[in-house]
Amino acid sequence: MTDPEFWRELGQQLRVDSIRCSAVPKSGHPTSSMSAADLMAVLISKYLRYDFDEPKNPANDHLIFSKGHASPLLYSLFKACGAITDEELLTFRQFGSRLEGHPTPEIPWVDVATGSLGQGLPIGVGVALAGRKLEQLPYRVWVLCGDSELAEGSIGEAFEHAAFYGLDNLIAILDINRLGQRGQTMHGWDLDSYMRRIEAFGWNAIEIDGHDVEAIDRAYEDALSMNGRPTAIVARTIKGKGVKAVENKDGWHGKALDNPEQAIAELGGERNILVRVPKPQSATPRSFPNETLTLPTYDVGSEVATRKAYGDALVAVGNAHGDVVALDGEVSNSTYAEEFAKEIPERYFEMYIAEQQLVAAAVGLQVRGWKPFGSTFAAFLTRAYDFIRMAAISRANLKLCGSHAGVSIGEDGPSQMALEDLAAFRAVHGSTVLYPCDANQTAKLVAAMVDLDGISFMRTTRAATPVIYGPDEEFPVGGAKVVRDGDDVTIVGAGITLHEALKAADALAEDGINARVIDLYSVKPVDVKTLREAARATKGRFVIVEDHYPEGGLGAAVLEAFAAEDSLHVAHLAVKGLPTSGKPEELMNAAGISARYIVAAATKLLAGK
Amino acid sequence: MTDPEFWRELGQQLRVDSIRCSAVPKSGHPTSSMSAADLMAVLISKYLRYDFDEPKNPANDHLIFSKGHASPLLYSLFKACGAITDEELLTFRQFGSRLEGHPTPEIPWVDVATGSLGQGLPIGVGVALAGRKLEQLPYRVWVLCGDSELAEGSIGEAFEHAAFYGLDNLIAILDINRLGQRGQTMHGWDLDSYMRRIEAFGWNAIEIDGHDVEAIDRAYEDALSMNGRPTAIVARTIKGKGVKAVENKDGWHGKALDNPEQAIAELGGERNILVRVPKPQSATPRSFPNETLTLPTYDVGSEVATRKAYGDALVAVGNAHGDVVALDGEVSNSTYAEEFAKEIPERYFEMYIAEQQLVAAAVGLQVRGWKPFGSTFAAFLTRAYDFIRMAAISRANLKLCGSHAGVSIGEDGPSQMALEDLAAFRAVHGSTVLYPCDANQTAKLVAAMVDLDGISFMRTTRAATPVIYGPDEEFPVGGAKVVRDGDDVTIVGAGITLHEALKAADALAEDGINARVIDLYSVKPVDVKTLREAARATKGRFVIVEDHYPEGGLGAAVLEAFAAEDSLHVAHLAVKGLPTSGKPEELMNAAGISARYIVAAATKLLAGK
Repeated sequence: MTDPEFWRELGQQLRVDSIRCSAVPKSGHPTSSMSAADLMAVLISKYLRYDFDEPKNPANDHLIFSKGHASPLLYSLFKACGAITDEELLTFRQFGSRLEGHPTPEIPWVDVATGSLGQGLPIGVGVALAGRKLEQLPYRVWVLCGDSELAEGSIGEAFEHAAFYGLDNLIAILDINRLGQRGQTMHGWDLDSYMRRIEAFGWNAIEIDGHDVEAIDRAYEDALSMNGRPTAIVARTIKGKGVKAVENKDGWHGKALDNPEQAIAELGGERNILVRVPKPQSATPRSFPNETLTLPTYDVGSEVATRKAYGDALVAVGNAHGDVVALDGEVSNSTYAEEFAKEIPERYFEMYIAEQQLVAAAVGLQVRGWKPFGSTFAAFLTRAYDFIRMAAISRANLKLCGSHAGVSIGEDGPSQMALEDLAAFRAVHGSTVLYPCDANQTAKLVAAMVDLDGISFMRTTRAATPVIYGPDEEFPVGGAKVVRDGDDVTIVGAGITLHEALKAADALAEDGINARVIDLYSVKPVDVKTLREAARATKGRFVIVEDHYPEGGLGAAVLEAFAAEDSLHVAHLAVKGLPTSGKPEELMNAAGISARYIVAAATKLLAGK
Repeated sequence: MTDPEFWRELGQQLRVDSIRCSAVPKSGHPTSSMSAADLMAVLISKYLRYDFDEPKNPANDHLIFSKGHASPLLYSLFKACGAITDEELLTFRQFGSRLEGHPTPEIPWVDVATGSLGQGLPIGVGVALAGRKLEQLPYRVWVLCGDSELAEGSIGEAFEHAAFYGLDNLIAILDINRLGQRGQTMHGWDLDSYMRRIEAFGWNAIEIDGHDVEAIDRAYEDALSMNGRPTAIVARTIKGKGVKAVENKDGWHGKALDNPEQAIAELGGERNILVRVPKPQSATPRSFPNETLTLPTYDVGSEVATRKAYGDALVAVGNAHGDVVALDGEVSNSTYAEEFAKEIPERYFEMYIAEQQLVAAAVGLQVRGWKPFGSTFAAFLTRAYDFIRMAAISRANLKLCGSHAGVSIGEDGPSQMALEDLAAFRAVHGSTVLYPCDANQTAKLVAAMVDLDGISFMRTTRAATPVIYGPDEEFPVGGAKVVRDGDDVTIVGAGITLHEALKAADALAEDGINARVIDLYSVKPVDVKTLREAARATKGRFVIVEDHYPEGGLGAAVLEAFAAEDSLHVAHLAVKGLPTSGKPEELMNAAGISARYIVAAATKLLAGK
């Protein structure tokens, strides 16, 4: 539809529906939705190409709400496009509804979870990279950003990388409504300050009145004519636009309106416009061939750094799987991702020293079905911890490798030593944490990572360590290896400390003490069975040794595994699933951490005694 | 000294010494040092005002190496200024030497640890904020940045905030040597691309040849004449400048030179120039009065959110301690830091949605002796995890508060729920982790945080919860409260789950089961004694309940505490101190995770049986 009056009416409908759905739970962000309603009305009426019946259609455009709190607008838009019913719209923020407070991919037309600000645009860079550099498809990536989130450095990283990679398929729509959560943003309505910065990055930047539908139309038209440069539409908007009680007023962030009926009347009442969003022309993405997997092998007794084996194996899985891609944060000669960059350059992305953009691009690439392996020093993955946390909520399929873990890196000192990475990654929802000690094991685990769901993390070591396993040994995720048998004491190590454990076992043997040595290469999930057998065999005597701070690492992994053991009588209740929206009591019950679950756990413990 | 020939000679000396000190351990970053040698030579000869005999002199300038890997240059500079001997310079990177691979504040003239790139400039913003906004002193903050690190979004946050706060006492010296660790940077020697961006942020930007000492001199002069705007000196430099074998050559990052003797000869041999850096004029920083502490109190039985009590108590400690300052990431109306902002605006800094800059500014403020309390949603502190990790290496004294923890926040959904924060903060070296359950307890713990060393973190809850403690109760850090006595089973909770635990204890009592309830408000350090007593009294039956993912949180805190218990027979070896530089073996021994320590631990366990 190209009728301005239609656009204006649709904009009003999106406002009305944003107010209506927020009125039910009496919470949400209607005013942040109302500022961007006209921008979205024109987009879905004329520009978006999307098959709502087939969200996996590879030719679909992508629409990412970087300002995830404008979810009422997104859900109202889904209703306007016929994707959800009005009845479902009104389930917003209720327990059990997929229309959560902030969007998640539980909704089929949502690519990624947003709600931690400043993440949608860098993720959009990853989706756009896939379109331009890998698939060579004409889909566009539309990202709606708020103005408060433009203060996040990750947004600057996205501006930088999108320009560098010439992503003219990326259009950032900046909803400059002046007001953040607690008052005016740093730049308020000084649109020129945004224009200057964005143009300095090399983008095409267009300043408009975000409520002038004809200007919005011209801006989108302009964006689509770009060649080689991404576009930012810098739109001056009004928070709460159209309702006098809240329009451009401070103190109305994240609140349902006091008098929704009156506001709806002021906006001209409810409407039921249905937009027929055109489907994209069918298209086939470029793909890359799969070959038979031939993993590198290493001679037992030779010395090879696990980071080197990571690089070798990455090339092997890259050749075997045409959907594997790799990224690195300008340290590929240390992580050995450079081997992939040299052998398979068309599927390698240099992300420079911008770890947030590195992880975000990986999230964007996996949205399109690619299997990204991202690497940097393990210490520097902490820079992207919020992105990794959010990626788990996005149900993203990420493979991350952190090299140079622990004090064993030597002279570079603590700034370069990951000593909290195991704790951080173990606490990520649904994560897998792998920590190989030798090169053959590393290769096998890299191959396993290709097919793992969720966030998987491999910790590699700087130093060359002895190869102790033959190339035919298997290392299932969730397993552990009893490297040496013994019934006096169990020593648990992984990575670099496994070798120390073996040396210790030799020394103990000289004193007639038989130590059992366990290689806990799968730190999460952990092999409870092998640990229990060891506890029985060695009368509960455990030495756990790790190159990591004491909290939350290998020690906690073992101890938490035993928490379920009868002999310890410990029940541990915690948030074990991924939570959704709902009332606090509902969520505490769903997580099993409310009073009734404590009663049940206590009763069960006592019955067992 | 204002003689160009002197500057040039001094530049050569700094290069020679950078090569010499790296030649001993055969590691380090001499080429990254050589590019910036002339920039530093002019700085220390004419502009720096610093009393090396009195590093705590409040009138001293600050010099921060954001490119911490150029430590050979920094240490050579210390030698040239007479702060260290040539003999000490040659201990670089050796175990036991304070001249580590990357600088740390173990050296009295180093403010903060650097080495994770992109952190020195945002920290410099904090130091400069103290000078301009709090102390009203004329000291200058000089920050040497590399070009690779300019890709970090945190650098963009620093540019943005420094301009916003008008920090004309901040001078960023950008060493654009074109080459990163693995090849050319994104922008290479396209200095114009840097100039455009920096000017767009509103800075004074000066482009120079970084080896033309007279141009360097003019640029510094210009920087000091600025009024209201920070300055960036964008210097085109050559990596490895002066030594043909490495000059402007790829593949020489982070490597000692192959033939140091020849390189030194090429640079004209060793020199022993001593620079007399002028001391600053003595000056007294503005300070704020201390009043008697009057903490807020709450009636037992009333319902108050701990985040509200945090805000109330923050005002109280702010009034009581003139050195307390507060910062927030544009959510002060949620964290309740807004109470401080309203009552004590002259010591409050709005950092907008830029959590990395928020934490970095706090680090910079504590460099000057201020006691910063920084707050945002606990989930969003993950955005700054690398800064928090590095702050621990900086021995920084930071107080952080994360609100809206756990599923109990309700409708906003998982993007806003901190569920991995306890694991992440527990794993930070030397950290304190506090998790109050009621308002009076919160107030007491906020007061305790003022005097805590290192990184302290308080987790607050969104919902109003019952006040269960009287205002006179004491809550020592490292303690726990037995809220209810009982000998059948122990229930451990903290924060929101403590209230669930109490409800559960009531329900169990109806069945004749006496539950002991422990409030583990001090998650780290944890009260081992109280936990052990409970284990004895309740025959080891523990129910631990937390609003956090299962890994690394309250459960791990309890289990790790018991790991030292005889009854479990678990020894847990890990990196318990803050590591330094040294050879891998040295560091593994110093940390007690090498074979000999495993032998000792195993032997001890066996002797105990």
